[in-house]
Amino acid sequence: MAGDGSDQRALQYEQTLMYGRYTQELGVYAKEEAARIRESGQRRSLSERSLHEYKGRCAKCRRSGYPYVLDSPARNFLTVCTVRCQKFLISRVGEDWIFLILLGLVMALVSWVMDYCIAICLQAQKWMYGGLDSNVFLQYLAWVTYPVVLITFSAGFTQILAPQAVGSGIPEMKTILRGVVLKEYLTFKTFVAKVIGLTCSLGSGMPLGKEGPFVHIASLCAALLSKFMSLFGGIYENESRNIEMLAAACAVGVGCCFAAPIGGVLFSIEVTSTFFAVRNYWRGFFAATFSAFIFRVLAVWNKDEETITALFKTRFRLDFPFDLQELPAFAVIGIASGFGGALFVYLNRLIVQFMRNQKTINKFLMKKRLLYPALVTLLISTLTFPPGFGQFMAGKLTQKESLVTLLDNRTWCKQGIAEEFDYLGNAQAWQHPQVNVFVTLVIFIVMKFWMSALATTIPVPCGAFMPVFVIGAAFGRLVGESMAAWFPDGIHMDGTIYNIVPGGYAVVGAAALSGAVTHTVSTAVIVFELTGQISHILPVMIAVILANAVAQALQPSLYDSIIRIKKLPYLPELGWGHHEKYNIRVEDIMVRDVRYITLNCTYRDLHSVLLTGQLKTLALVESAESMILLGSIERAQLQSLLSQQLGRPRRLEYIKERANEDKKKRLSVESNQTSDDHSQRASQEVRFQISTEESSVSPSRTSLQKPLKPALKRSSTVERPTELPTSPQDHSGIALKNLFCASPDAEALEDDGDVEDDMTMREIAEWEEMQLDEQVNFNNCKIDPAPFQLVERTSLHKTHTIFSLLGLDHAYVTSIGRLIGVVSLKELRKAIEGSVTVKGVKVRPPLASFRDSGTSSSETEATELHKLWDRHKTMTLPRENTTSSESDEKSH
Amino acid sequence: MAGDGSDQRALQYEQTLMYGRYTQELGVYAKEEAARIRESGQRRSLSERSLHEYKGRCAKCRRSGYPYVLDSPARNFLTVCTVRCQKFLISRVGEDWIFLILLGLVMALVSWVMDYCIAICLQAQKWMYGGLDSNVFLQYLAWVTYPVVLITFSAGFTQILAPQAVGSGIPEMKTILRGVVLKEYLTFKTFVAKVIGLTCSLGSGMPLGKEGPFVHIASLCAALLSKFMSLFGGIYENESRNIEMLAAACAVGVGCCFAAPIGGVLFSIEVTSTFFAVRNYWRGFFAATFSAFIFRVLAVWNKDEETITALFKTRFRLDFPFDLQELPAFAVIGIASGFGGALFVYLNRLIVQFMRNQKTINKFLMKKRLLYPALVTLLISTLTFPPGFGQFMAGKLTQKESLVTLLDNRTWCKQGIAEEFDYLGNAQAWQHPQVNVFVTLVIFIVMKFWMSALATTIPVPCGAFMPVFVIGAAFGRLVGESMAAWFPDGIHMDGTIYNIVPGGYAVVGAAALSGAVTHTVSTAVIVFELTGQISHILPVMIAVILANAVAQALQPSLYDSIIRIKKLPYLPELGWGHHEKYNIRVEDIMVRDVRYITLNCTYRDLHSVLLTGQLKTLALVESAESMILLGSIERAQLQSLLSQQLGRPRRLEYIKERANEDKKKRLSVESNQTSDDHSQRASQEVRFQISTEESSVSPSRTSLQKPLKPALKRSSTVERPTELPTSPQDHSGIALKNLFCASPDAEALEDDGDVEDDMTMREIAEWEEMQLDEQVNFNNCKIDPAPFQLVERTSLHKTHTIFSLLGLDHAYVTSIGRLIGVVSLKELRKAIEGSVTVKGVKVRPPLASFRDSGTSSSETEATELHKLWDRHKTMTLPRENTTSSESDEKSH
Repeated sequence: MAGDGSDQRALQYEQTLMYGRYTQELGVYAKEEAARIRESGQRRSLSERSLHEYKGRCAKCRRSGYPYVLDSPARNFLTVCTVRCQKFLISRVGEDWIFLILLGLVMALVSWVMDYCIAICLQAQKWMYGGLDSNVFLQYLAWVTYPVVLITFSAGFTQILAPQAVGSGIPEMKTILRGVVLKEYLTFKTFVAKVIGLTCSLGSGMPLGKEGPFVHIASLCAALLSKFMSLFGGIYENESRNIEMLAAACAVGVGCCFAAPIGGVLFSIEVTSTFFAVRNYWRGFFAATFSAFIFRVLAVWNKDEETITALFKTRFRLDFPFDLQELPAFAVIGIASGFGGALFVYLNRLIVQFMRNQKTINKFLMKKRLLYPALVTLLISTLTFPPGFGQFMAGKLTQKESLVTLLDNRTWCKQGIAEEFDYLGNAQAWQHPQVNVFVTLVIFIVMKFWMSALATTIPVPCGAFMPVFVIGAAFGRLVGESMAAWFPDGIHMDGTIYNIVPGGYAVVGAAALSGAVTHTVSTAVIVFELTGQISHILPVMIAVILANAVAQALQPSLYDSIIRIKKLPYLPELGWGHHEKYNIRVEDIMVRDVRYITLNCTYRDLHSVLLTGQLKTLALVESAESMILLGSIERAQLQSLLSQQLGRPRRLEYIKERANEDKKKRLSVESNQTSDDHSQRASQEVRFQISTEESSVSPSRTSLQKPLKPALKRSSTVERPTELPTSPQDHSGIALKNLFCASPDAEALEDDGDVEDDMTMREIAEWEEMQLDEQVNFNNCKIDPAPFQLVERTSLHKTHTIFSLLGLDHAYVTSIGRLIGVVSLKELRKAIEGSVTVKGVKVRPPLASFRDSGTSSSETEATELHKLWDRHKTMTLPRENTTSSESDEKSH
Repeated sequence: MAGDGSDQRALQYEQTLMYGRYTQELGVYAKEEAARIRESGQRRSLSERSLHEYKGRCAKCRRSGYPYVLDSPARNFLTVCTVRCQKFLISRVGEDWIFLILLGLVMALVSWVMDYCIAICLQAQKWMYGGLDSNVFLQYLAWVTYPVVLITFSAGFTQILAPQAVGSGIPEMKTILRGVVLKEYLTFKTFVAKVIGLTCSLGSGMPLGKEGPFVHIASLCAALLSKFMSLFGGIYENESRNIEMLAAACAVGVGCCFAAPIGGVLFSIEVTSTFFAVRNYWRGFFAATFSAFIFRVLAVWNKDEETITALFKTRFRLDFPFDLQELPAFAVIGIASGFGGALFVYLNRLIVQFMRNQKTINKFLMKKRLLYPALVTLLISTLTFPPGFGQFMAGKLTQKESLVTLLDNRTWCKQGIAEEFDYLGNAQAWQHPQVNVFVTLVIFIVMKFWMSALATTIPVPCGAFMPVFVIGAAFGRLVGESMAAWFPDGIHMDGTIYNIVPGGYAVVGAAALSGAVTHTVSTAVIVFELTGQISHILPVMIAVILANAVAQALQPSLYDSIIRIKKLPYLPELGWGHHEKYNIRVEDIMVRDVRYITLNCTYRDLHSVLLTGQLKTLALVESAESMILLGSIERAQLQSLLSQQLGRPRRLEYIKERANEDKKKRLSVESNQTSDDHSQRASQEVRFQISTEESSVSPSRTSLQKPLKPALKRSSTVERPTELPTSPQDHSGIALKNLFCASPDAEALEDDGDVEDDMTMREIAEWEEMQLDEQVNFNNCKIDPAPFQLVERTSLHKTHTIFSLLGLDHAYVTSIGRLIGVVSLKELRKAIEGSVTVKGVKVRPPLASFRDSGTSSSETEATELHKLWDRHKTMTLPRENTTSSESDEKSH
């Protein structure tokens, strides 16, 4: 009964204020608030009811087909109607499908325009190369200069505009969808840099892909669109909705890149998620389908195609795609691709690490940032120069052309028998007068392999999927051609001769190698959609699964590898084989030395806590003795509290007040003032010293008269006790500046006008000291009343699952309501990786709405300050002794 | 530093005892335990290290290729090696892929054998019908009797063997994967009933499907296989692993039913999950691919096929599958299918509810359970009788044949023009001499529509996917044929004539309607895999998405509809449009009247709590005053505690002791004994009365001498105060019996032998009373030290997500460590559904490892007892007044 009742009541609630004034009497406040809200809710529901009535009548009126009968009440009615309809339309803008259609449309256009530009770029190179066929040297120059210029431009452009646009983008998206806020990753600048950079780098003809960057571009699109749409409705401000939209955007990215909606959705799920919300599924499908549709319609509109078909359409026979006895060959492709994929990831990482570790190279490259891209491009384009070494590896074909020829349904090695294919076209490039097709293919595979691994390390926007896909196709073709040479009349026994189709092998190889590199199964679906044929489904599935099994056992996926290289936050997977893990408890891994603030703390405490901690939120406890967790407050909130307290407006107010006071005082007693002021100032100075130097000197006893620099100013020439290596005031001053306001100097320079800021540096410092000793007023502070809590006996397994499901960044550990520790991603990762051999990295939950929405501001500043103020830690926290006893226990 | 240290320590832990002795000094105990475990962990890790060395050497020895050099230490070594290898092999059995291969293999065999049997059944019917073509009446009899007999047998067989096998199985699997334990759903009996029942019902030729039941069969297989495999290794006892395997099994079920591995995985995810663990993804793919592979290989082996191809292979042209201008027609198919799908779900539910609500029908049918199936079958088979009405709806075709003809790539309505198709074969059935093809198709669609909706309500194992799929195909064909008639030369403008392919429309229609009924997008993938062609990908996707959009707006999916009809537990989805929900807090919906036990409670308290509560776990708090939550205990644990306390062994021990005591006493003082015993007995009696009747009479004051019946015995003729309508002792006696032991009578009858059970009923009752007053000893009780906790200000949105992600059944609400309420699925559902209009039902998280693994035993018993003991509630809980103040607040 009680339960029912409270349910009913709950449903009547329409709380509009989630956060609000908080005083010590939380309970009382909550009750008041509840009463207030209930009332307003009732009022609101009343007004809503009348609104509904209106709507109903309005709808009727429209339905009845007489909207123009303008008697007086009806006219009134019509106005209401119109307004309502307008509102309705605007509210519609907030609906998911509108957003998704817009996203799909924009991405399809972007994709198509980019493809068009890339095609023009590639054509231009061919045209230049073709036009200069009289002179090989000039040809070489043209062949080499063109990509070098494009890549260098791309590298320089992205470097200048938005260095975040470099690389694939999938690792970053994985991290973002995990709930981590990566600064500047979803801005308009990055969008421009990525689009233009990618167009240039792909236009250069280097072995680079567009899939990864497209995922990023689509996410950028979604983020920007979301910002734009928030002008119309409030839904777009919802954090977790944005995360869901980003997930859909990833699907759109892959979908419109390959015109593969299903594969795109699946690939994006596999690559970016740990737990996937099925309710989000249709969003991806809807947007990706729409996007792929528009993308292909544009091709039809441009007369490239007669109708909507697959991007790399194959024409394998339908009735007998392959023989059962060919399956071992497909399995071999799968296993070999698994090893190849792992090798690719390893090679890629090796190159990056080599570049990093070789200090001389590193230094040199850091100075001349554009040299590395230029050198790599020069090397690769030299090797692919068609009249040179390129003739042995079909160097004159673009990536797309190679793929088309590789997926050809005719057999190369016994050509000329059946139809004397006169229009061999591009496939001719594989035929070398002196050299066998097999040799060409082997050289192609080997050269492209390291070239791709190298090219993807260039700091331009680029992916690795497509190059790997082409290499896989070539490998499959190699096996297929070998099989065709081995069994010229096919393997099938009874009656009809079914020749072996090497193109089918190429499809299998492409899916298997790309699956191995990315650790995904959905590449299988992508190849079906790319080729428009699903007849090889079983060979493809078998090869992909085998390739995945092998590759996953050897190396992390390319994206996880990049995540580690870039040191992005991630959460490793708990393996099944490690059951002992489940018996580790949170209490074993938690950090007991928690940064917290108490309800009755002073601004000084706040200040020191802000300087020492790094977490984006801070725990609010009742008092240091009880340690009862009341909630958590975002860093940014506290910073604004502090800056309000120490800010110029409040100081000016103080000056005004003081002036008034002074006047009064001057009238009455004029003699005592200065000395009084003096002693007060002195004590404050000392207090400041205490807080920086941990001296136990009581404020009233000493009265050092050193001129203290105000916290908001930088210029410091004063000597300080030299216990600290660098001058602490200086740093703390900067810190405060960074902490509190965007451009404090500018703010300090301009004047309020009515009050004259006549305080000296010293006075300001004094005033600040005074302000710091006041008790914090949490009234206008957003407090999250229900931060995520665990109890100390929660198992590691459970913790891991909760973290990865809910996208937590940290969780508080409480014992009987008392805060006893905190577990963050870092601790969890350490606990898991401590013994488990690093395998696949699986991070990011479907719902990151529970993470702290606080911006990641001032984290770097905090870090350097952290070092400085480190010694304070031991003093600040009364629970530190727990830690030490902890370590005692450990040692004995 | 502190964090690092504790991590390191944590990793050294190898806790083997998760649960253990618990006394009031939890902290002290935990420390002792930790120390003990650390020691043992070190020891273990030592022994493990040596083991690893062994293994390493062993591997080396094998690799070196000299296993047979038998010098004495080497021989020793070899023995070790062999043992180790054996162990290794056995441990391999525990690996996932072995299990998945086995599962796939078994399911492929099951599927193939069933298909084979069904084909024979259908052939037999045709043969009978064909053989009797001299006499129409005999033909009719044969045509009708055959399915009636089969369906009746199927209904009867499943009814007798396992009524759980009735129906689709997908709703139940959804519920099970949600974390709810459904009794008897995964037993061998159900497996047998489902397989045989399904074979018979499909063999009858009724419009029934095999997809849903196959999901169930695969899950049954997985559960049984898991049980079987647990003989080899311990992994199989892991609950959450089993859940993951069940999820994979669902994919296998769909995969081997349609030879559609990818579609199978996606469909099973969409149909059964809310949040899907991507790490589980490969399992589904692996098993489903293997299963589909074997399933198709069996067909090749049986010479049904030349090689592995799709199940319903189509031969549409590849170069120009459809024109852009045909897209509106595809969209129309999608939208119409959406309405059709919703109508189907509604019709299906309507029929079930009609049957339930019509009391006379219901009563009649309940008596003659087999009558309903027989009548429905009779009706349907009469209508499809080929010489009768069946001639207008291709009645003589089986479901499979209809589908094959519908997907034909030739156009029906202008037949005879191009090639004069002489081998029209089955497609001839659609041509009626007098009637147009369009009319045949319309009649087919309309008749099959209600027939399928009706047939799926028959209590036999059956699904609705396949019939819906066929209807959709027919609808698509209808549109396609109309288009072909409208544009005889195709729509394409420039040059070449591309005729319209009605088969493509059929594919689109099939995907759209089945997608609408099941609310899934993955039916698109299923049709590609079924037909072996992906050329129509965009039309199919567009139609499926439109159909889903329409159907989801109108009705729940068929499976969710069945979940509601069957009243299975589920958790509704939180819509985005309902933001006010997020401002409801847990404190508004929680039940404040929590069943709990205290650390120092008596067995009597335990008893009463067990009788009143229904939840599978009970909260353990420190004391009724502090209400500090210490953990949760499973019901079953408490029941065993209670039964141990009151069980026969302990009583016999008591008798022995008493006998010894008696002897001693008899020797010393013989006079006082009886009176002493008497008074003690009396006081206990009274105390019992208090606990049942809430009288405030103190135990020592009154001494009623009524003969009390022992709790374990039933026969009661004693008068009791008649406040309770039924005799309470009686019921409580049964309750205890049900609660404590499987067959208490049997147990009571057999004798231990050495001690004579000479206690009278009365003495037993007295003894039991005495025992009930003892304090509970929780030493041997499994306590979950970290039950899921929320704080009172957790929002509804967060609660919902946590529940659905973690598969919780209930969570405790704590305030500063004090237990103040509990939220269960029920409250959550009520809170959500209270105002939100019921939409899709989305239940079940990927990880149900956090749900209470307690068996759902004795819940029904508890329910009936609940009513009886209801009045106690108010007395039991000291926090009841909170609730009343709550309601006061509400009312004013």
